[in-house]
Amino acid sequence: MGCKSGITLFTHSIERKEIMEKRYVIGIDYGTLSGRAVLLDAIEGCELGVAEFAYPHAVMDKTIPSGKKLPEHYALQHPADYLEVLRNVIPDVLSQGGIVADDVAGLGLDFTASTLIPIDSSGLPLCFNSVYSDEPHAYVKLWKHHAAQAEADMMTMFAETRGEDWLASYGGRISSEWAWPKIWQIVRESPEIARATARFCEAGDWLSQVLTGEESHSAVFAGYKAFWRSGKGYPSDDFFTALDPRLSGFVGSKVSTNVFTVDNIAGKLSADGAALTGLCAGIPVALPMIDAHAAMPAVGAVNPGDFMMIIGTSTCHLLHTAETADIQGICGYVKDGVIPGCVTYEAGQACVGDGFAWFIDNLVPSMYTTEACLEGISMHQLLRKKAERLKIGESGLVALDWFNGNRSILNQSNLSGMLLGLTLRTRPEEIYRALLEATAYGSRMILEQFENNGLYIKEIHAAGGIACKDPFMIQIYADVLGKPIQVADTTQAGATGSAIYAAVATGIYPSIREAARQLAVPCTKQYIPNPDNKKQYDKLYQEYTILHDYFGKGENGIMKRLLHMVQEVKSEN
Amino acid sequence: MGCKSGITLFTHSIERKEIMEKRYVIGIDYGTLSGRAVLLDAIEGCELGVAEFAYPHAVMDKTIPSGKKLPEHYALQHPADYLEVLRNVIPDVLSQGGIVADDVAGLGLDFTASTLIPIDSSGLPLCFNSVYSDEPHAYVKLWKHHAAQAEADMMTMFAETRGEDWLASYGGRISSEWAWPKIWQIVRESPEIARATARFCEAGDWLSQVLTGEESHSAVFAGYKAFWRSGKGYPSDDFFTALDPRLSGFVGSKVSTNVFTVDNIAGKLSADGAALTGLCAGIPVALPMIDAHAAMPAVGAVNPGDFMMIIGTSTCHLLHTAETADIQGICGYVKDGVIPGCVTYEAGQACVGDGFAWFIDNLVPSMYTTEACLEGISMHQLLRKKAERLKIGESGLVALDWFNGNRSILNQSNLSGMLLGLTLRTRPEEIYRALLEATAYGSRMILEQFENNGLYIKEIHAAGGIACKDPFMIQIYADVLGKPIQVADTTQAGATGSAIYAAVATGIYPSIREAARQLAVPCTKQYIPNPDNKKQYDKLYQEYTILHDYFGKGENGIMKRLLHMVQEVKSEN
Repeated sequence: MGCKSGITLFTHSIERKEIMEKRYVIGIDYGTLSGRAVLLDAIEGCELGVAEFAYPHAVMDKTIPSGKKLPEHYALQHPADYLEVLRNVIPDVLSQGGIVADDVAGLGLDFTASTLIPIDSSGLPLCFNSVYSDEPHAYVKLWKHHAAQAEADMMTMFAETRGEDWLASYGGRISSEWAWPKIWQIVRESPEIARATARFCEAGDWLSQVLTGEESHSAVFAGYKAFWRSGKGYPSDDFFTALDPRLSGFVGSKVSTNVFTVDNIAGKLSADGAALTGLCAGIPVALPMIDAHAAMPAVGAVNPGDFMMIIGTSTCHLLHTAETADIQGICGYVKDGVIPGCVTYEAGQACVGDGFAWFIDNLVPSMYTTEACLEGISMHQLLRKKAERLKIGESGLVALDWFNGNRSILNQSNLSGMLLGLTLRTRPEEIYRALLEATAYGSRMILEQFENNGLYIKEIHAAGGIACKDPFMIQIYADVLGKPIQVADTTQAGATGSAIYAAVATGIYPSIREAARQLAVPCTKQYIPNPDNKKQYDKLYQEYTILHDYFGKGENGIMKRLLHMVQEVKSEN
Repeated sequence: MGCKSGITLFTHSIERKEIMEKRYVIGIDYGTLSGRAVLLDAIEGCELGVAEFAYPHAVMDKTIPSGKKLPEHYALQHPADYLEVLRNVIPDVLSQGGIVADDVAGLGLDFTASTLIPIDSSGLPLCFNSVYSDEPHAYVKLWKHHAAQAEADMMTMFAETRGEDWLASYGGRISSEWAWPKIWQIVRESPEIARATARFCEAGDWLSQVLTGEESHSAVFAGYKAFWRSGKGYPSDDFFTALDPRLSGFVGSKVSTNVFTVDNIAGKLSADGAALTGLCAGIPVALPMIDAHAAMPAVGAVNPGDFMMIIGTSTCHLLHTAETADIQGICGYVKDGVIPGCVTYEAGQACVGDGFAWFIDNLVPSMYTTEACLEGISMHQLLRKKAERLKIGESGLVALDWFNGNRSILNQSNLSGMLLGLTLRTRPEEIYRALLEATAYGSRMILEQFENNGLYIKEIHAAGGIACKDPFMIQIYADVLGKPIQVADTTQAGATGSAIYAAVATGIYPSIREAARQLAVPCTKQYIPNPDNKKQYDKLYQEYTILHDYFGKGENGIMKRLLHMVQEVKSEN
């Protein structure tokens, strides 16, 4: 692992005096539907401004801007939206905080991953070029683009057959959400785009290049999403060539090997970057993080044994450890990616808040709509109020939370959701609660997978939109997991974490742990498991595990067969 | 099997002249929520009046009239409602037809079963007595009262252990919907009501006693619902005594052995019956039928090989055959119960229209409510319109239609519904269609169970509310079953069938086949399977059968465990 000359942390020369004047940092968190910025006083830790800008193109899963229809399981984005975020949120937080650009010391950002952009040799996304703007493969493939499942499966099988040692570090199975299946899909389906691509670039890395004018690739993206391992690099060219000769030579050319760990910064804000953001050229830009990982220092989860769940539309589970172990179905781990000297494991659930929203959008009766309206509360609030009154087990329902496939511990995007125990007495709030509970069982499955493989879990933190605004759900999680859960009062953990990385990049703090000690959002609530509830949930979890293994581990492949049939039927005509 | 002296068919003396004047017959069909009457010209076959009266107490599943709360799975009725039907629908059809009571030659009726009333020695339901009116067990246990599941299971096990030969005739498993589990539940839970009961009587038999003043018990009720077999009678007193000494001596006392086959009539209308109905005393009252069975002659299904599905809130499957075979999971068969000389098999699905209604009541979004309202169509129509546009397999969903347990071929009321294949793209109409399709798979399962046991199916008839008004669904059935389906244009097949039995009772026709030839409603539509659709449905049916066997045949008893947990939780305060 090499360091970029001249921009290694703690060695660049920012004057102490200058630091004290330039005491403000900005963190930007690029999520699935919007970018959010936080302006932080890096000395006092107080938050001076928060801004959000929704991507105008949101997630393109039906058509691209030209009107061309997209096949099943596509999820694309438009990179112009990411630039719009910069143009909007930075002036917004500055004006909220009454801060001038000159007082901003540094910038950090985090991004969803693997969110992949094919760019040309000048660093421009191919979709910006009118030649390619009618070609879906020229756009950004969002993390939840699931159309490369066939590639992911073939790659897994091929790596297994060849006994590739890196496979075990990724839970033994390659996810369609990762970079290489997405790249291979482009190569297989659109040789022209593959040829025109100079770099397949993570959106986060592309943005740091836009801001600094220098190309760098963050170890978290390469490590968690593209099989890059500290000290070992990418899988061999031999592997990729044997898989598909058209992938020959990609490593080191179309996939950059300029990978940097967290003890580096991305670079300094360029003149172009300054023009785009309104900030001053020359301030440090931190190495981009994955969105979930950025949240860890924001809640003080910076030590081995800290386990964190970022619960939102999906859930990301992260665990810092001192040791490493290859664990089946865990997405991967990276050393020095998030905290220097730490190994950080990642696991995840592909559908959490998304599933509840789906239920509300599709399956809530008009009577409830009226009731929520009369009470002046949201549908989530109404359903939670009703669901709260239910006793555990009263509905007789158990769900499998795989509405968007299963990330951990099965790592198969072609699984689907299930609801069992329905009777003519089943009420909407019972289904809603069963969906909540299923996500808690899914999290317990992941936690047990870590523990059963010898990794130590000391403290559980929860963050993300749902963790902050839904005590009912987090209590269910505490009861299902049987462990206390700490929640910090912030809905902007990602952006705050990025700001903390920015604060370290400026040199205000010598380390992320030091910065987190001062700047992390304090834990405001601890959820303690209720022993009676735990006992009831143990029974239901037992049922969940039987269904989980039956449908997820190959005994009955019905979900895959049905999804295959969907594809067949939809591809007719 | 004895005949009632003086009232055997074809031997009583009604003058031909009188017949021609008294050419009208009335059939009354007692369903789950209402009684419906048809006035028929027994010579020409034309329908002169149709009336319906909804039971004021409907189905009591939460409380009885005193306000006392009912436990889970109760489904009671109030027998006063049945008398109200008589008081209302008969004058109504007469007035519609412009017919005077004097011109009515006979009366027939059919009833749901086993719908069981405890009556005292004067023939009055115990719940009419203020001493017992606060006691749930004094009321009518409707066919879908499922609270005697434990009794049904214990009885099955006990009969199996003793090698009772009658068990095989009932598909090898006793349903909680049948008479004996209901009787035993009363004995176990309310000895006082059991003691006060002179007869446990099917509601249909009780009504014929109310109308004629004579007690008789129709072979269809005793045969399908109480283990009575032609030539063999009930199981031995030894069996019942060994099961529970408190049941000793019931056969022949609290359970009457005065069982009559279809070549008999119930009696003649008494003076009290005449006062109640406004009809003339002395006209014959046909032996009551089970509601579904009455529909067979109404659509001309009177010959061996005729298979009939009466599709409504639940579905009843009936098959006339020349032979008998003991078939696992089929509800039972009775010889001479429906057509003299024929064996008629019965099977059923416990939840069909009920399931669709549940979906509409609970899980349809307000946007759809508005859309249906704007288009001026019902929610069923809207959902069918949307569901019709889907290709087979396009939704990727498969459901198990056990929202009210499974009657055939598993015969376990403590199973529940399941929905698999859900994704974030799943739409309400897709779930609705999956529910429709699941009921079609359930019917195919039953049909194949007959055929695999060597019984010949020649023609498939469909009747009932859904069969007439829903061509979309019946086409799905034809495609799933892979056989043509005949539908007669009547929503009153039960009442028409009862009128046909009445016409035979009057002597206007010498046999049910003769009467059906003249009076049956003609087939108005034949649904032919589409071979491409059949092929697609074969794949989905294959998936259904795997789930059916996995959850229904003991490999994973999760549904029972969850329902047991529901009961435990609800029984805590």
